[in-house]
Amino acid sequence: MSVDGALLARRFADIIGGSRVLTDPEAMAAFQQDWRGRYRGSALAVLMPSSTQEVAALVKACVELQVAIVPQGGNTGLTGGAVAPDDRPAVILNLSRLNRIREVDARNNSLTVEAGCILAHAREAAEASQRQFPLLLGSVGSCEIGGLVSTNAGGTGVLRYGNMRELVLGLEVVLPDGRVWDGLRALRKDNAGYDLKQLFIGAEGTLGIVTAAVLKLHPQLNVSATAMVALAGVRQAVDLLRFMQEQVGNRIEAFEIMSRRQIELVLQHGHGLQSPMALDSPWYVLMEIADSSSQWDAVAELERTLEAAFDHDLLSDAVVATDVAKARRIWELRHNLSEANRHAGFTVSNDTSVPVSRLPEFIDRVTERIEQQLAGAQVCHAGHIGDGNIHVIAVLSRAVHATAEQCEAAATQVNLIVHAASVELGGSISAEHGIGRMHVARLERFKPALDLQMMRTLKQAFDPMNLMNPGKILRA
Amino acid sequence: MSVDGALLARRFADIIGGSRVLTDPEAMAAFQQDWRGRYRGSALAVLMPSSTQEVAALVKACVELQVAIVPQGGNTGLTGGAVAPDDRPAVILNLSRLNRIREVDARNNSLTVEAGCILAHAREAAEASQRQFPLLLGSVGSCEIGGLVSTNAGGTGVLRYGNMRELVLGLEVVLPDGRVWDGLRALRKDNAGYDLKQLFIGAEGTLGIVTAAVLKLHPQLNVSATAMVALAGVRQAVDLLRFMQEQVGNRIEAFEIMSRRQIELVLQHGHGLQSPMALDSPWYVLMEIADSSSQWDAVAELERTLEAAFDHDLLSDAVVATDVAKARRIWELRHNLSEANRHAGFTVSNDTSVPVSRLPEFIDRVTERIEQQLAGAQVCHAGHIGDGNIHVIAVLSRAVHATAEQCEAAATQVNLIVHAASVELGGSISAEHGIGRMHVARLERFKPALDLQMMRTLKQAFDPMNLMNPGKILRA
Repeated sequence: MSVDGALLARRFADIIGGSRVLTDPEAMAAFQQDWRGRYRGSALAVLMPSSTQEVAALVKACVELQVAIVPQGGNTGLTGGAVAPDDRPAVILNLSRLNRIREVDARNNSLTVEAGCILAHAREAAEASQRQFPLLLGSVGSCEIGGLVSTNAGGTGVLRYGNMRELVLGLEVVLPDGRVWDGLRALRKDNAGYDLKQLFIGAEGTLGIVTAAVLKLHPQLNVSATAMVALAGVRQAVDLLRFMQEQVGNRIEAFEIMSRRQIELVLQHGHGLQSPMALDSPWYVLMEIADSSSQWDAVAELERTLEAAFDHDLLSDAVVATDVAKARRIWELRHNLSEANRHAGFTVSNDTSVPVSRLPEFIDRVTERIEQQLAGAQVCHAGHIGDGNIHVIAVLSRAVHATAEQCEAAATQVNLIVHAASVELGGSISAEHGIGRMHVARLERFKPALDLQMMRTLKQAFDPMNLMNPGKILRA
Repeated sequence: MSVDGALLARRFADIIGGSRVLTDPEAMAAFQQDWRGRYRGSALAVLMPSSTQEVAALVKACVELQVAIVPQGGNTGLTGGAVAPDDRPAVILNLSRLNRIREVDARNNSLTVEAGCILAHAREAAEASQRQFPLLLGSVGSCEIGGLVSTNAGGTGVLRYGNMRELVLGLEVVLPDGRVWDGLRALRKDNAGYDLKQLFIGAEGTLGIVTAAVLKLHPQLNVSATAMVALAGVRQAVDLLRFMQEQVGNRIEAFEIMSRRQIELVLQHGHGLQSPMALDSPWYVLMEIADSSSQWDAVAELERTLEAAFDHDLLSDAVVATDVAKARRIWELRHNLSEANRHAGFTVSNDTSVPVSRLPEFIDRVTERIEQQLAGAQVCHAGHIGDGNIHVIAVLSRAVHATAEQCEAAATQVNLIVHAASVELGGSISAEHGIGRMHVARLERFKPALDLQMMRTLKQAFDPMNLMNPGKILRA
C-alpha cells in the first residue's frame, strides 16, 4: 500500500496544526528509535496531540487512511514497544503534550492525570496533598503515566504496593475506532459488569490508547531504616524475607538481593564506592523498612528483627545504617549496578520471574547452564527477591566475544537459557518489561497455544483492523 | 427447543456417575433458588463434578447438546447470579465437590485452592502456615472460592487488602468450548502478554467456569485495638479516616460507619445489646487497627491518635476498648445489623459506592429524597466508608406498605433513588454484590452505551453461543 506522505501530513495538520505534525527525518529521529538504540522504525509522521479529543480525531483519520498507530509516551521502554513497524504505513502518536494533572482528591486518595504526565510530576502532586504515589523506577524523571499503565510497570515498590495494575482505579481510552471510552471512575469497589479497564492495562497500546488515568494514592511515610545483610545462600534470603514479614508485616519497602560478584563489579567500576561490610559471603540483601507512624522506631525495630533473624541462622552478618548518609551509601551499591556492568564487559541482562519459593533452584540452574555453555562468562544476580523477579546478568568476556555478531549470538544463547529455566519453574519470560517487539517470537515459543489464541481473540475483537501498535505482543 | 431430560441425564451420568446428576425436583430444590428465595430457576439437572476434567467433559457435552450452563458455588450470592434461566434448557454446574487445597506455598505467600473450597477452609489453610488470607465476609462459612473470584468479592478487608481481584495470582478456567485454560501461575510480576485471568474475575461465570485459583497470602496480625467514635457528620468521618491514615498508615483493618438511627434499631431489636457510649451524636465510626509487629502497642497508639484527632475537631467523643470482650461488644453493634433491621419493618438495602470524598453529599441526597418520596420511611446508613461503599437502608412502615405489592413498589422506588444518586456522583450501582440477574435492566439504564457494547464484544468473542450463565450481567 502506498501512501502520499504530504497528503497525510496535511490531513493531520488540519486536526492539530502543522507545528505538531513532525515529518522531517531529523525532527523525528529521537521518536523513531528506542532510547537504547536497539530498535528503529519508519513512521511517516510523529503526531503530538494535546487533548483527548485530538487523539480521537487523529485515530479516526488513521482508520480512514488505514494507517497504523504507535502510541508513545516517554519512550523509556526496554522492549521496543513504542517503535513503528517497517512493513506498513504508520504514525507515532506521542502523548507527551497530554500532561495535565486533572484532579487531586486527597479525601478519596486518588489522583487523575493525563497519559503524558511524567511519573515524577504525578508523585509530586501526590506529595503536595500529603499523600504518596508509590510507583518508582529508574526512569522516574522521564517515563509517562500512559506508558506505565500500558506496560503494567513494576519497579521497586511492588512488594508493598503492587504493580501499576493495582494502582489504577480508572482509565480514559481512545478505542481503535476513535471513540472515547470514559472509564475514569475513582471507586474502590465497583462490580457493575466487566471491569473493562483491565483490558488496557499491560496491553502495550495494542487495544487502544490510554489518554488519562485515575491513580490510587497511599499514606506518606515518615520513618525508615536501611540495612545490608550477608547471607550464605538464596534460600536464607527467601526465609529471611518471610521471617521479616512475620515480624514487621507490610512495612518492608525494599528487599533487594545482590550476589557478591555483582557487588564486586560495582565496587570495581563504581568510582570510589565502598562496601559497608566485608564481602566474605556469597549473597547480600539490601533492605528498607518504612512506616507512616512517626511513633514507630524503625531503626530499633530493624536492629531487633535482624538480631532475632541471626539467632534463627537466617543471616551471617548485618549492618544497620544509623543515619541517612550511611543508608544512601548502602543503596548506591544497587543504583550504580547498570552503569558498572556496562564498564565490565558485554552485558546480557534478563527480566524474568518465578515463584519466590523457586528462586534458589532457578538461580542455581541458570548460573550453572550459562557458565557451562559460555566460556569466560561471569554470572551476576540482582533483583526484587520479594517479587520473585531476578535480573540474571551475564557479563561476557570481550576476549571470547570480540565482534558484534559474536556478542549477539551469545546474548541469544543466554536469553534462551534464562527464559527456559524460568518457564520450567512456573515463571514468566517477562516479569516487568513487557513483550514489545523484542519478545514476540519468544512469547510464541514459551506461551501455551491456548494462551496465544485467547490473546488473539481479544485483539481481533477490539482491533479487527489491527491498526493499534501492530506487531507488538502478537505477530501482526 | 425441546430436550429429552432422561437422555440428557444419562449423558451426564456417563461422565460423572448417576449419583452426581440430580434430576429429582426435591433433590434439586436447594440449588434451584437463591438462599433468600427471591429468584427461582428451572434447570433440567444439577451436576456435581469433582475434578476439572469432569467439568471440561460436562461443558463439552453441553456444547454438543446446546444446553446452557449455570456455574454455582456456595449459592450465597445476593443478585441471583447462580439461578438457572427459565427460557431455555439449562443445567446447574455446582462446584462444591471441587474443594481440594492443592498447595500452600508459604515462602511464596500463595495458596492454590479449587473453586469449591469454602472461604473458611482457605483461611484456615493459610493460618496453618502462619499466614492469612484476608478476604472476609458474612458468609465465610459457606461461600466458595470460585464464586468469590467470579463476583470479585469485597467484604470488610478491602480498605487494607483490596478486593478479590487484588488477591488472585492465577486461575484455572474451563472455557465455554470445554477446553481447560491453565493460568495457575503464582507470580507477583508477569507481563508476558495480556493478563487473561482478569477476564474471568468478576465475570460471574459468563465467560467460563473458574475451577481453581492461586491466592495471595499476607502476614498474620498479632496485635489490634478497637474503638467506637462519635461524630457530628459524615465529612468528619472522611476527614478522620484521612487523619488516621496519615498517622498509622495502612494498619487500619476496619473503618465502618453507622448512623445513630441504625444503632438505635440494633439496640431496640438486638436482645440485650448495649452501646458503650451515649448516643447523642448523629454518626458513629467503629474502627480497628491491627499490625503484625507485636512490638507495636496498638491500644496506646489508637488512644494517642484519637486524642490528636479530637484536638483537630475531627470527632466528638471516643471509647477505646481496653480488652477483647469490650472490643467484641463494639463489633456486635455492626454484626447484628441485618438481623435487627429484619425485625424493624420491611427493609430495602442497597449496595452502591461513590468516591469517598463524595460520601457526605451522597448520603444527604439519598436521605432527603427517600424521606420526601416515601411516607414513614426511616433511612439508616451503614457501610465501609473507606471504600466509599455505603449500604443505604430504608426501613419502610408496615402501616403504609401493607401488601407484598406495595412493598415491592416501594423497594423499586428506593433502589432507583439510590442508584441515580450514586451515578450522579460518579459512583457504581453495584459496589460489591455484582449484577447477576437482579440488576441487568438497571445496568442497561445507567451504564453508558459504549460500556455495554464493549461488554457485549467480550461476551461474543469468548462465548459466541451464549451458553455460559446466559442472562446474567447482560441480557441474553
